[in-house]
Amino acid sequence: MANKKIGSQTIMLENAPSIIGVSSIVGPKEGQGPLKDYFDLIINDMYYQEKSWEKAERKMMKEAVEMAIKNSKIPYNAIEYFIAGDLLNQIISAGYTARDLGLPFLGIYGACSTMAEGLALGAMIVDGGFADNVVIATSSHFCTAERQYRFPLEFGTQRPPTSQTTVTGAGAAVISSKVDNPRITYITVGKVIDMGEKNPNDMGTAMAPAAVDTIVKHFEDTKRSQDYYDLVVTGDLASIGKDIAEDLLKEKGLNLSNRYSDCGLMIFSPYQDVHAGGSGCGCAAVVFCGYIYKEMKKGRFNKVLLVTTGALMSTTSTQQGESIPCIAHAVSIENL
Amino acid sequence: MANKKIGSQTIMLENAPSIIGVSSIVGPKEGQGPLKDYFDLIINDMYYQEKSWEKAERKMMKEAVEMAIKNSKIPYNAIEYFIAGDLLNQIISAGYTARDLGLPFLGIYGACSTMAEGLALGAMIVDGGFADNVVIATSSHFCTAERQYRFPLEFGTQRPPTSQTTVTGAGAAVISSKVDNPRITYITVGKVIDMGEKNPNDMGTAMAPAAVDTIVKHFEDTKRSQDYYDLVVTGDLASIGKDIAEDLLKEKGLNLSNRYSDCGLMIFSPYQDVHAGGSGCGCAAVVFCGYIYKEMKKGRFNKVLLVTTGALMSTTSTQQGESIPCIAHAVSIENL
Repeated sequence: MANKKIGSQTIMLENAPSIIGVSSIVGPKEGQGPLKDYFDLIINDMYYQEKSWEKAERKMMKEAVEMAIKNSKIPYNAIEYFIAGDLLNQIISAGYTARDLGLPFLGIYGACSTMAEGLALGAMIVDGGFADNVVIATSSHFCTAERQYRFPLEFGTQRPPTSQTTVTGAGAAVISSKVDNPRITYITVGKVIDMGEKNPNDMGTAMAPAAVDTIVKHFEDTKRSQDYYDLVVTGDLASIGKDIAEDLLKEKGLNLSNRYSDCGLMIFSPYQDVHAGGSGCGCAAVVFCGYIYKEMKKGRFNKVLLVTTGALMSTTSTQQGESIPCIAHAVSIENL
Repeated sequence: MANKKIGSQTIMLENAPSIIGVSSIVGPKEGQGPLKDYFDLIINDMYYQEKSWEKAERKMMKEAVEMAIKNSKIPYNAIEYFIAGDLLNQIISAGYTARDLGLPFLGIYGACSTMAEGLALGAMIVDGGFADNVVIATSSHFCTAERQYRFPLEFGTQRPPTSQTTVTGAGAAVISSKVDNPRITYITVGKVIDMGEKNPNDMGTAMAPAAVDTIVKHFEDTKRSQDYYDLVVTGDLASIGKDIAEDLLKEKGLNLSNRYSDCGLMIFSPYQDVHAGGSGCGCAAVVFCGYIYKEMKKGRFNKVLLVTTGALMSTTSTQQGESIPCIAHAVSIENL
């Protein structure tokens, strides 16, 4: 079979699988932000009636998947794979959700790049004819992430202004061979870029070069012009990282101007005390499955490049003096 | 495009991608075991000249990948994707290896099932025409796993007899559209099975039902007879889990008798003080990339079903009283 790769890192999906259903569930703070009317469910309790934040996170993921399948209007047993990952050690949100769903499961990890990694793998599996319907999901939770990566919330530690606020939320999408809009047309799988940044309280700065590397490769490989997309949206660079990304893009000759935005800035208002902005796998997941998807359905956006970005370090690697390896994957989603 | 799925959970790979090169690197204890002559490299220092065990683990993974590419006799720049995962939080062995390799990277997590998950995804990507050559890898290290999942080795904690010994090792395989033996013909992606086991010191018991579920589905879906394979090999159930798996298989009407073995038993001799046997992603990786692959090349084995098994809990989920969700993926590897 002919290799469907174009350029150095991009794949053209010949059959352009459709995203036939999505859903988004968010926490209280996200539910007060500017995108509040786009989410399917806003929970008002960080425990979501569970005994731990970890159990609350996986409950959000499970319900998001069930809701996405319902919204896709195909029967539950038509779903062939569940592809998911999250920020927690051993991706337990995804693993326990897979147990409860009873679907064949492929676990992935890409830190906050997980949403595009899931869309990319799901799209390849459908485009390659290995399944007709797969569901992908990712989640994050402010309290589980703080406990695991930084300090238990009970410490009341003050976070520096460069730090980002992990989004409490879960998003899920059903990718299908059924023809409908929007569709996944190209994917650009990223390389790990590490510019030597070591500050775990400033992920935006660390991740910006990875986002730019993947965006530049995507435009080079597809030979699309810089005004092709209605929206190029990075996952969660937030205020500091987005500024750096814009500068780096211009240096590379790409001027996306007001077509470029970042999910970490879109999800919260600057008045919400979220420091540099939003982050976490859930951030890009709910902004895409909430706002972007719905605006694509209405035709306000017709061509979107979703570029989710991940910082692949752990607390152990940081303690051992390592810098932060970052990655970004791009998925071209279009109304055809 | 026609769905290539057969039965409920199995995919037939129309083009049957080849495994054109592999490599295996192991630690000192594995290098004294019965398979010692099959490994490409035995390190005699658990630090492998690095400052931490974590850095040693990723050095093994990086060298295993480079050696597998060299053994495959294709140029380095012909490799299009690096698909990898490991046991460490945020799969840092894979993430830092991806940084050093400079290849487009897809991170996966399936605990000790990672080897088959990587082979499955790599085979789908090649079979679907999205790449001509991908390299997959996984690793584990006794000291990094003990520190993260149980106790720092410095404590000198005594482990119970049901516990398994995490294999120190890394394995890598190049999957290619080039026609050569052995080839990947079918994959069965597993569901999460959780029978309520909660003892993190007895993974074999927890994982056996997941292995059996996937093996039974594979035979049902492919309609192959119970004597089709020369070898059906589970990842790392070790002595306790393998006995349970054999009983459960017989209950389901599958009598694999002496065609069935387990990597966790094959890698160590019973005289090596490894408790129930070997475990860790690296276990199935080095047994496959060392012993099984080489014996397939010689024609001693022509049809192998590799079924790697993973326990998807974390220390947090165990502390929160959760049982252990387990998974197994099966890959049919054949000389055609």
